[in-house]
Amino acid sequence: MAKLKWGMIGGGEGSQIGPAHRLGAGLDGLFEFTAGALDHRPEAGRDYGQRLGLSPDRSYGDWREMLEGEKGRDDRVDLVTVATPNATHFEITKAFLENGFHVLCEKPMTMTVEEGEDIVRLSEKTGRICAVNYGYTGYSLVRHMKAMVARGDLGRVRLVVAEFAHGHHADAADMDNPRVRWRYDPAQAGVSAQFADCGIHALHMASFVIGQNAERLSADTVSCIDSRTLEDDAMVNLRFDGGTVGRLWTSSIAIGRQHGLTLQVFGEKGGLRWAQEQPNQLYWMPLGERLQIIERGEANLSPEADRSTRVTIGHAEGMPLAFANIYSDLAEAIRAAKDGRDMDPAADLYPRAEDGLRSMAAVFAVAESGKRNGEWVDARPPLFR
Amino acid sequence: MAKLKWGMIGGGEGSQIGPAHRLGAGLDGLFEFTAGALDHRPEAGRDYGQRLGLSPDRSYGDWREMLEGEKGRDDRVDLVTVATPNATHFEITKAFLENGFHVLCEKPMTMTVEEGEDIVRLSEKTGRICAVNYGYTGYSLVRHMKAMVARGDLGRVRLVVAEFAHGHHADAADMDNPRVRWRYDPAQAGVSAQFADCGIHALHMASFVIGQNAERLSADTVSCIDSRTLEDDAMVNLRFDGGTVGRLWTSSIAIGRQHGLTLQVFGEKGGLRWAQEQPNQLYWMPLGERLQIIERGEANLSPEADRSTRVTIGHAEGMPLAFANIYSDLAEAIRAAKDGRDMDPAADLYPRAEDGLRSMAAVFAVAESGKRNGEWVDARPPLFR
Amino acid sequence: MAKLKWGMIGGGEGSQIGPAHRLGAGLDGLFEFTAGALDHRPEAGRDYGQRLGLSPDRSYGDWREMLEGEKGRDDRVDLVTVATPNATHFEITKAFLENGFHVLCEKPMTMTVEEGEDIVRLSEKTGRICAVNYGYTGYSLVRHMKAMVARGDLGRVRLVVAEFAHGHHADAADMDNPRVRWRYDPAQAGVSAQFADCGIHALHMASFVIGQNAERLSADTVSCIDSRTLEDDAMVNLRFDGGTVGRLWTSSIAIGRQHGLTLQVFGEKGGLRWAQEQPNQLYWMPLGERLQIIERGEANLSPEADRSTRVTIGHAEGMPLAFANIYSDLAEAIRAAKDGRDMDPAADLYPRAEDGLRSMAAVFAVAESGKRNGEWVDARPPLFR
Amino acid sequence: MAKLKWGMIGGGEGSQIGPAHRLGAGLDGLFEFTAGALDHRPEAGRDYGQRLGLSPDRSYGDWREMLEGEKGRDDRVDLVTVATPNATHFEITKAFLENGFHVLCEKPMTMTVEEGEDIVRLSEKTGRICAVNYGYTGYSLVRHMKAMVARGDLGRVRLVVAEFAHGHHADAADMDNPRVRWRYDPAQAGVSAQFADCGIHALHMASFVIGQNAERLSADTVSCIDSRTLEDDAMVNLRFDGGTVGRLWTSSIAIGRQHGLTLQVFGEKGGLRWAQEQPNQLYWMPLGERLQIIERGEANLSPEADRSTRVTIGHAEGMPLAFANIYSDLAEAIRAAKDGRDMDPAADLYPRAEDGLRSMAAVFAVAESGKRNGEWVDARPPLFR
Ligand SMILES: NC(=O)c1ccc[n+]([C@@H]2O[C@H](COP(=O)([O-])OP(=O)(O)OC[C@H]3O[C@@H](n4cnc5c(N)ncnc54)[C@H](O)[C@@H]3O)[C@@H](O)[C@H]2O)c1
Ligand SMILES: NC(=O)c1ccc[n+]([C@@H]2O[C@H](COP(=O)([O-])OP(=O)(O)OC[C@H]3O[C@@H](n4cnc5c(N)ncnc54)[C@H](O)[C@@H]3O)[C@@H](O)[C@H]2O)c1
Ligand SMILES: NC(=O)c1ccc[n+]([C@@H]2O[C@H](COP(=O)([O-])OP(=O)(O)OC[C@H]3O[C@@H](n4cnc5c(N)ncnc54)[C@H](O)[C@@H]3O)[C@@H](O)[C@H]2O)c1
Ligand SMILES: NC(=O)c1ccc[n+]([C@@H]2O[C@H](COP(=O)([O-])OP(=O)(O)OC[C@H]3O[C@@H](n4cnc5c(N)ncnc54)[C@H](O)[C@@H]3O)[C@@H](O)[C@H]2O)c1
Repeated sequence: MAKLKWGMIGGGEGSQIGPAHRLGAGLDGLFEFTAGALDHRPEAGRDYGQRLGLSPDRSYGDWREMLEGEKGRDDRVDLVTVATPNATHFEITKAFLENGFHVLCEKPMTMTVEEGEDIVRLSEKTGRICAVNYGYTGYSLVRHMKAMVARGDLGRVRLVVAEFAHGHHADAADMDNPRVRWRYDPAQAGVSAQFADCGIHALHMASFVIGQNAERLSADTVSCIDSRTLEDDAMVNLRFDGGTVGRLWTSSIAIGRQHGLTLQVFGEKGGLRWAQEQPNQLYWMPLGERLQIIERGEANLSPEADRSTRVTIGHAEGMPLAFANIYSDLAEAIRAAKDGRDMDPAADLYPRAEDGLRSMAAVFAVAESGKRNGEWVDARPPLFR
Repeated sequence: MAKLKWGMIGGGEGSQIGPAHRLGAGLDGLFEFTAGALDHRPEAGRDYGQRLGLSPDRSYGDWREMLEGEKGRDDRVDLVTVATPNATHFEITKAFLENGFHVLCEKPMTMTVEEGEDIVRLSEKTGRICAVNYGYTGYSLVRHMKAMVARGDLGRVRLVVAEFAHGHHADAADMDNPRVRWRYDPAQAGVSAQFADCGIHALHMASFVIGQNAERLSADTVSCIDSRTLEDDAMVNLRFDGGTVGRLWTSSIAIGRQHGLTLQVFGEKGGLRWAQEQPNQLYWMPLGERLQIIERGEANLSPEADRSTRVTIGHAEGMPLAFANIYSDLAEAIRAAKDGRDMDPAADLYPRAEDGLRSMAAVFAVAESGKRNGEWVDARPPLFR
Repeated sequence: MAKLKWGMIGGGEGSQIGPAHRLGAGLDGLFEFTAGALDHRPEAGRDYGQRLGLSPDRSYGDWREMLEGEKGRDDRVDLVTVATPNATHFEITKAFLENGFHVLCEKPMTMTVEEGEDIVRLSEKTGRICAVNYGYTGYSLVRHMKAMVARGDLGRVRLVVAEFAHGHHADAADMDNPRVRWRYDPAQAGVSAQFADCGIHALHMASFVIGQNAERLSADTVSCIDSRTLEDDAMVNLRFDGGTVGRLWTSSIAIGRQHGLTLQVFGEKGGLRWAQEQPNQLYWMPLGERLQIIERGEANLSPEADRSTRVTIGHAEGMPLAFANIYSDLAEAIRAAKDGRDMDPAADLYPRAEDGLRSMAAVFAVAESGKRNGEWVDARPPLFR
Repeated sequence: MAKLKWGMIGGGEGSQIGPAHRLGAGLDGLFEFTAGALDHRPEAGRDYGQRLGLSPDRSYGDWREMLEGEKGRDDRVDLVTVATPNATHFEITKAFLENGFHVLCEKPMTMTVEEGEDIVRLSEKTGRICAVNYGYTGYSLVRHMKAMVARGDLGRVRLVVAEFAHGHHADAADMDNPRVRWRYDPAQAGVSAQFADCGIHALHMASFVIGQNAERLSADTVSCIDSRTLEDDAMVNLRFDGGTVGRLWTSSIAIGRQHGLTLQVFGEKGGLRWAQEQPNQLYWMPLGERLQIIERGEANLSPEADRSTRVTIGHAEGMPLAFANIYSDLAEAIRAAKDGRDMDPAADLYPRAEDGLRSMAAVFAVAESGKRNGEWVDARPPLFR
């Protein structure tokens, strides 16, 4: 089966997330890295692309050049990943969708709710995929949690507790560190810092697993370091549209926590606990029984878990494989579309533009509620009310 | 050194907390169990007391009889523990204080803030100790956390995150279980269920460790099981009087968690993490360094930790020893009072009537804020505003 | 019920194990600390005993004085604990048994196999209890492991893997530390250091849990620090008399391990794993199922586990309570003997002189095999061959 | 930079290890999967190869055909992975080396010591790389352990303790399972089962980390299931050529352990502990300090660790990335050879034919010592004595 052609915008040399995308897209051999506009400095981008194996004519200096170059080709890229800084996501994603490309956009998909709504409508209108990289949902056991909830193992889900709390911005001296400073500056980061950066991962994961969307929320947002305007710590209480109560803590000043993305789901018939840093074990207690440890790679977990696992039980799988699962879903979706067939339902799990939009709505809701002392506000984008 | 004489009210045969008090009071040989009114059924109480070794004339049928019997004696008990159901704490504690006894009262100390204020005033007026059994603060490493904060290891404390979330009331069928049902019934339990039962332990521990009291709070309280009127799950956001932000989650429907009392403290210069179920390890990350594991029993931790530890490093110490530390503090306080000397400052750590009162104020504040959709309310008792 | 009277030899001020015995004997209120000869310095012993609450006439200057003093009394002590240095155990234990006292002797019970055989015969002849303080078998979940094996949950036990490996003697500079040095000096410590000190705990626990005794063994003993004559690290392979294979690693140079006593038991139908440092959890995997976590304090584990637990699930119990279980067994055994009735079988778990003798035989076998390059040798005392 | 061309023998559809190689070889984009003879059934192999993207003329029916096909080409494969059953490794590896190909052979490299010596000599003579896939040494933190030892962080290494003990062959009913049965049958598996299959991984890792080779060993080998002739459990004591003592436990009947590859290293100045199932954390205690947790991805660990890590701290990396590190080393070695330059020393870590040979010698030594009741035997291949 011929590989799909894959292009990337952003993710230049030294970028944080670029390598993870190349790993994820490449590791199953489903995509061929074919085109890119990798850097905001045209020459650096062209050069690096070629060093990564792109042909000179498809290692572009900027994304507009890439759009021009690709859109005319018969062998144009099947999927474009947008991994540039946040403020550029909307414009680039929009342009590629309009020209008939499938897109995987980094989070946050846009800077405003309105832009998010545009993207959702555009994706619908053009029939092009617009996925959003909530890559942590690619973990096999996260998908298995979703499957367990969906097939009723937990009964009605009463409560979901999500955390994304780390300590990497806890040093007050970071006020002078350019890699950190901009994040807490509204001019550059918008209305929210830590929630927009990490909280939306936790919120999306909660929604993904319980199969419900946030309806209302109340937030307590604080800046623990004086020089910051935007929040570095937030507690958000939620109500989901299926009746589940949510609690979400996100922080960047929690010294001693490396990554800190965790999910707990409590239903009528059992409880689940999972942590991104030990992603190969899932703690499950059926009501009235003992706590047991579900291992990634166990036989017969669920179609969703089975499809998204590669090595045998007892061998750790990590984050690049989670990303690869998003790409594998997309490959299946693109191929199914090409072939005019239904896609494998166990692959139909990649996050959508709708999810990106919902995150944006949540970001603004958190910021608003935070300003209003925790007043409950609507967490939904107008489009979905 | 002669043992102090100890009496107990409540804690009859089959009671939950009675044995832990007898263990805690007895294990250092500081107290002699001398008198008791152990059961609401006079005969059962008398009989059980004698089986536990009380002399017949000091194994009383009820607390009034005990008060009468003891107050006239020269060798009257030095300390009375009140471990009866919540609604009786105030009356009994009051009566014993008024008659010049030192009291250790179970939590919650009272059912209302006003009662709590009475007890505080009474304790002050009579000069008698009124302690409250927040026994988990007796753990050596909890005391060490307090010492670390106090001596500045963490710098200013920015954030404290406390949890007391378990799953023991998660079964909807428990609606018919008399041991569970009353807890969620306002007629019997008052304005709050899970927060009043467990949340106040977490709140007290947070206050104890950071050396600050709650000033304001906002609560999201929910009942996850339909038949319940009072909350079985709550998230409380707090502001402490030294400027620290607090987050406190308490739940009784979190299936898979056995006890679930944990504390995380984040300061300018480092972060701490501790869990009651593994109380002999404390996770500590100094800013910019690695996570390290402080072991109970390490040499030279702090006077507070050293005083409250009994066996060598690597040997687990558990909850009965934590309780015993409260009793050991009280023995030192009583003796120091008798001897007219200052008490060992490393023993001056037992929770006070003031703490019991503050808990009451927090319970009412949580209930009120919960009803008002999370409005921020004053968390302090009027007496301390 | 009147308390039993308890006496102690050794365990003076500042001793390592003395406080743990007093905690263990005292905490259930079954024993009254009544007599003692606590120190090798008569005055220090008398003085400390009185400070601990002994009456002056029963706070003796040495054990012979105590023997004289106690043996004539009507109210003489019911049980004597011998917690002096190893070389004195035999003589003291023998003298007290001969005079009709029940004895709890610290490990190792004797310095030679022959002495051990004497004690076994003497205990039999006099009908007096001679227990040996393998206190770690007092943990509730260790007793539950034994019960699980006995009732067949594991099927035939194929393999038992025990470790007691810590790092507290890893500093080569300790060669000059008197608290460490003597342990590796044959003149003072006998034929074995680390195995005799710690290995026998692990071996006894393995035997206790699987209900079998060591028959043959092969040992690899090494001294990792040059100045040492006796071993600080040993690996021992074993065959038990019920056919189970054993593997036992003990070390005192394993830096990073605090205590390091663990047990793994593998049978036809399942596997168990337990560690002394987290004694409230037991990992159990039934063949073909998931790993599950058994919690101390769970309802209906086994009579043995239930009897040896004091506080509710989710609250840690530690080592003093394990010791207390040994004392509680002994109280039951002594009372049953007094009352002329059978003892509660769930209490009939305290280690016996026979176990102390078997340990001695194992110590000599390990030393011999170690010298002979791991030759397999008989691990049994001649008396039991 | 053009990709290297990669071929594979074995690893057909449904094979256990095939996918891990394709992941590992592919994920950095260093190798292009170009040729293969994937299955013992020619048609199945050809077909599967094409489905994996091989061109029809390079998807061969068997390895001899592949050798013929490739050796004449200008664009012949740069590296051949041999992932067929054990008994075929020698013949295939030999043939490809002789024809000038670099080879990565699965473990065990050969079935006898003599064959192993042949391969070592051949690799030397031809100047071709013959690597052996001890893929677990590819983990970033395993490489960091090696670096720590090499740079002296531990001082002299006194003791290394390795385990590879799992429970996947614990079911006696497996006697009829063809996937399990052959492993314990000398006719098919040779002189050793569990040690040859798993033990050599643990032994190689120990050697790799401490930078020493096994000199002598003593083994206790047992079959816990009656129907088995070869061992399913073994304890091996070792002496390494730099003076370090080794202890190695391997088992396939340890129910409750999923994978069970762990390494502990104890030196004069500190101790290390690592487990394959949580490969992103390394426990390190410097003598006299606290246990601390080294995280994969920390800044400035060592050139070896830094080179072999791909995603940021706090994100799990798993086994496919460990394998990829072996491939990445090989790519660097092959390129350096092509370019006539020295290779990056931080990449010079892939296991060699010499290691494969040493493993074979250890396998025979274990089998021999096991038969002779643990007699100490030479663990070195004659070539290296
Ligand atoms: N899903 C996740 O878990 C996750 C994790 C980290 C980052 N991200 C997201 O990925 C995006 C990139 O983050 P990063 O940390 O890699 O940032 P970075 O600053 O490390 O790298 C950004 C890269 O984009 C390039 N770039 C900038 N503008 C460009 C343009 N106009 N055209 C082409 N290239 C351009 C830069 O040259 C650089 O190489 C952000 O939106 C971030 O939120 C997501
Ligand atoms: N500090 C803690 O960690 C903790 C833990 C559990 C319970 N508690 C508190 O301890 C108290 C008792 O709780 P419990 O779970 O043991 O209750 P329980 O119902 O198990 O036992 C209560 C005991 O009090 C006796 N009693 C009732 N009324 C009495 C009276 N008027 N006079 C004498 N005895 C009387 C009963 O006969 C019974 O023996 C409660 O206030 C509870 O909140 C505290
Ligand atoms: N079961 C266990 O887990 C465990 C743990 C530690 C020690 N032990 C054993 O306990 C025993 C004591 O060990 P330790 O570490 O407490 O020793 P230690 O040196 O700390 O204390 C020994 C005490 O015995 C006293 N003593 C010595 N000779 C005496 C005599 N003739 N008469 C009366 N008192 C005498 C000393 O004055 C001192 O108070 C040893 O046999 C040791 O093996 C057992
Ligand atoms: N390094 C590791 O961690 C690790 C792990 C597992 C297996 N292994 C090793 O990998 C090798 C393969 O093991 P597996 O578990 O994948 O075995 P497997 O039986 O699952 O697969 C073997 C594959 O090789 C193919 N094959 C057999 N003979 C062939 C031939 N002559 N030519 C071409 N293809 C042939 C088979 O068709 C099959 O596809 C073994 O040597 C094993 O020891 C190593």
